[in-house]
Amino acid sequence: MQNIPTRFMEILHEISDLGAAIALLDWDQQTYMPPGAAEGRGHQLATLARLRHVRLTSEELGTLLEELEQQIRGCDPDSSEARLVKVTRREYDKAQRVPTDWVAEFARVTALAHSAWEQARTTSSFALFQPHLEKIVMMRRQYADFFAPYDHVYDPLLDDFEPGLKTSEVKTIFDRLRPQQVKLIQAIGTRPQVDDSFLFQNFSEAEQWNFGVEVITRFGYDWNHGRQDTSMHPFTSSFGLDDVRITTRLSPNNLSMGLFGSMHECGHALYEQGIQGEFARTPLASGASMAIHESQSRLFENLVGRSLPFWHHFYPLLQKVFPAQLGNIDLLTFYRGINRVQPSLIRVEADEATYNLHIMLRLELEIALMEGSLTVADLPESWNSRMEAYLGIKPPDDAHGVLQDVHWSAGLMGYFPTYALGNIISAQLWQTIKRDIPDLEKQISAGKFDDLLAWLREKVHQYGAKYEPQELVQNITGQKIDPSAYLHSLEEKFGQIYEL
Amino acid sequence: MQNIPTRFMEILHEISDLGAAIALLDWDQQTYMPPGAAEGRGHQLATLARLRHVRLTSEELGTLLEELEQQIRGCDPDSSEARLVKVTRREYDKAQRVPTDWVAEFARVTALAHSAWEQARTTSSFALFQPHLEKIVMMRRQYADFFAPYDHVYDPLLDDFEPGLKTSEVKTIFDRLRPQQVKLIQAIGTRPQVDDSFLFQNFSEAEQWNFGVEVITRFGYDWNHGRQDTSMHPFTSSFGLDDVRITTRLSPNNLSMGLFGSMHECGHALYEQGIQGEFARTPLASGASMAIHESQSRLFENLVGRSLPFWHHFYPLLQKVFPAQLGNIDLLTFYRGINRVQPSLIRVEADEATYNLHIMLRLELEIALMEGSLTVADLPESWNSRMEAYLGIKPPDDAHGVLQDVHWSAGLMGYFPTYALGNIISAQLWQTIKRDIPDLEKQISAGKFDDLLAWLREKVHQYGAKYEPQELVQNITGQKIDPSAYLHSLEEKFGQIYEL
Repeated sequence: MQNIPTRFMEILHEISDLGAAIALLDWDQQTYMPPGAAEGRGHQLATLARLRHVRLTSEELGTLLEELEQQIRGCDPDSSEARLVKVTRREYDKAQRVPTDWVAEFARVTALAHSAWEQARTTSSFALFQPHLEKIVMMRRQYADFFAPYDHVYDPLLDDFEPGLKTSEVKTIFDRLRPQQVKLIQAIGTRPQVDDSFLFQNFSEAEQWNFGVEVITRFGYDWNHGRQDTSMHPFTSSFGLDDVRITTRLSPNNLSMGLFGSMHECGHALYEQGIQGEFARTPLASGASMAIHESQSRLFENLVGRSLPFWHHFYPLLQKVFPAQLGNIDLLTFYRGINRVQPSLIRVEADEATYNLHIMLRLELEIALMEGSLTVADLPESWNSRMEAYLGIKPPDDAHGVLQDVHWSAGLMGYFPTYALGNIISAQLWQTIKRDIPDLEKQISAGKFDDLLAWLREKVHQYGAKYEPQELVQNITGQKIDPSAYLHSLEEKFGQIYEL
Repeated sequence: MQNIPTRFMEILHEISDLGAAIALLDWDQQTYMPPGAAEGRGHQLATLARLRHVRLTSEELGTLLEELEQQIRGCDPDSSEARLVKVTRREYDKAQRVPTDWVAEFARVTALAHSAWEQARTTSSFALFQPHLEKIVMMRRQYADFFAPYDHVYDPLLDDFEPGLKTSEVKTIFDRLRPQQVKLIQAIGTRPQVDDSFLFQNFSEAEQWNFGVEVITRFGYDWNHGRQDTSMHPFTSSFGLDDVRITTRLSPNNLSMGLFGSMHECGHALYEQGIQGEFARTPLASGASMAIHESQSRLFENLVGRSLPFWHHFYPLLQKVFPAQLGNIDLLTFYRGINRVQPSLIRVEADEATYNLHIMLRLELEIALMEGSLTVADLPESWNSRMEAYLGIKPPDDAHGVLQDVHWSAGLMGYFPTYALGNIISAQLWQTIKRDIPDLEKQISAGKFDDLLAWLREKVHQYGAKYEPQELVQNITGQKIDPSAYLHSLEEKFGQIYEL
């Protein structure tokens, strides 16, 4: 970073270091923290969030920003320096709208909510979580109002994860997706179902863990600057470019859960590990948006991990690990099994064809909560009836329903739509990758991911948050974010599997 | 805390929360952090240490302190409020002497030094650690000079761990200990050696872990507010009263290492877990001093854990866990084995009779480094020759010599003497406990520690840092810190074991 004043960088570094500490305290809470420590952790997170916000909204930073904006006027607007200033300006302006006390309180509230959610999910009792979620919804409405006037109350939330994206745009995209996806699912429903019962035998968790580690090592995950642990809900966390960790969860009688979970989080982590070193400890040292982030995780989970070429290489290895369970299952049967389309309860385990319906359900509920047309008390019932309407199944309990995801406990409302957008973007990228690397499938069939990772590093990862999501997708694919490629790939893939 | 202004408490809470975050980042570095993340961690620790120091030295806190000191004049000087003000004043005044830049840089330097030390110890190559230690020694001399004039350059360091204690006082105490301990060791040397070879068989680490967990659970360790992990060097870390964690290390062919290590750290943790809740997030929420802290760890490790009554209860259980290894070893043989006196290389595994010689060696080296009469480059040689002079053995390599302890990598010079003082204080406390709980040995023989823990909670733990160490010992035992009880207990115990 040439020509950026030292003092400006110092402040960004301090904000970044505080963010890293916050991320570590949060990581620790989700992995190793003793159960009785939530209250203290809430105070610590509140204090750090407060200090970070005070620095981010400081007059000094504001003055430096204005000076820098003057200084770079006329410079290349795509230079890292100009982009750093632009992204910092965006964060600065947004932070100015939010009172520091709100930021500290929200950190404390969500820390307590997370522990309550863990307990509620374990015991499947929504009542334990309800008062926490009520507080969070209330605070999220306050948050939206800090950004009034808005087109829609959900816009300010969405904007935190997807800079510039509007609720109306999401709805437009989802309106295009929904009928096509429903049509596909209906067509599949007329065909004989594929078998996946072999995925639900007894699989040693240690062996699952090792196999997953082998796969993501081959993807290129850097263990010198990362590690994998277990948590109730899998996630990726970055404490700077030299420390990007993932978590997974395993089940002794569900092979898919841990395996595809590790691949998914590895996709996130490769993104963060691939950001150029020059951006370290600045606001550019993160993903361009959550949708771009999810495009990376879904790419490795689905377009690589649930593809036939991938299993050409890895299935014989997996059979060696689990000969009793998989020895008599051939490759094609396995491939079809891991891609079985069937409405199911848990989003993170959903197949590619039904996945987005889970997202649409959550979006509707989040919007209803924010608009005030739905109360938290009525949420489980509303969840269950929508599950029946959309997917034809009813959760047996709240642990498999409204309590399944960690996001609301962390206050991450506005996040879910990015999963669907990530699916869409991953397909757009994949189309371009296949054009740029003609023998990609052959490479993957040989267990080689070097060219793929190099492509992602060059086109996506290195830039971090330098480009905005739409801009980045346009630069790479020549198009804006558009669901055509995604829908086409779904139809192609499941058309083959289900012989439509 | 009555009559303490809210704003004063807020600042203390903020300082405490930052300290907790620093402790967590440090805990993580020693337990789970990926190896390549030391540089980023160094920056994060530097930033948090800087912010903490800025707050601790703020004019606002200074003004509030002065106002409070006026306000409490005439109040009970032993009230919690008066003591909180006193302890805060002490920390404030000390921090005023030290530039913020020094604090931040020292945090960064020691974070890097820690990772270098881990690597150096693993490969037994002092050269990897030497430049880091040179920097630390240099900075520690700067640190001492911030407190000039002093009687001795080592005084300011010692004072950080042992408020008010002077180097000359430590020397006086050590001068009283040394001849007595050497005499005892010599007397033991004339007697037939006891057998401890059975401790060095193959012991499953998982079984060792479980047995250790059982023991410290019986001691009263609160797992709802703590956890145990492994690290290269065992330590206890508190992130507030509701989260006090310990680490241990295990060896598959050394039963003592993990077992007594866990008991030792549990002693520390019980202290922190027992501090009264009212002191949470204030400077009173820590031990009175490191010597008092070590009195708790050494009490559980040695006076309980290496006692015959303890093993009356636990040895049959241990034999059940390791029947092949210990089935033919009777209780008395085991008891004598774990108390075998023999000059050895590793401080934390040393017997009670030779332990303090390790401390004296380190004190001399630290003083020489601080006085400048010894260079870091010459340290390994000086270590080895002193080991030969004091204990008659020479380390085979630096991993078993100068690199064995974590302290110097963390900049903890001035800490070691507190171990010997802890031994002394533990014996003084033990004398009083036995008077107050006449059937203590019987209780321990039955595996019961409730009365012991209740006594420690009432007399020691609850007060946290409210009383100064000399004052606390005086309040409880009626005496100042004095080695008589300790020397007497050594003579009695080893007189029996070695039939002197």
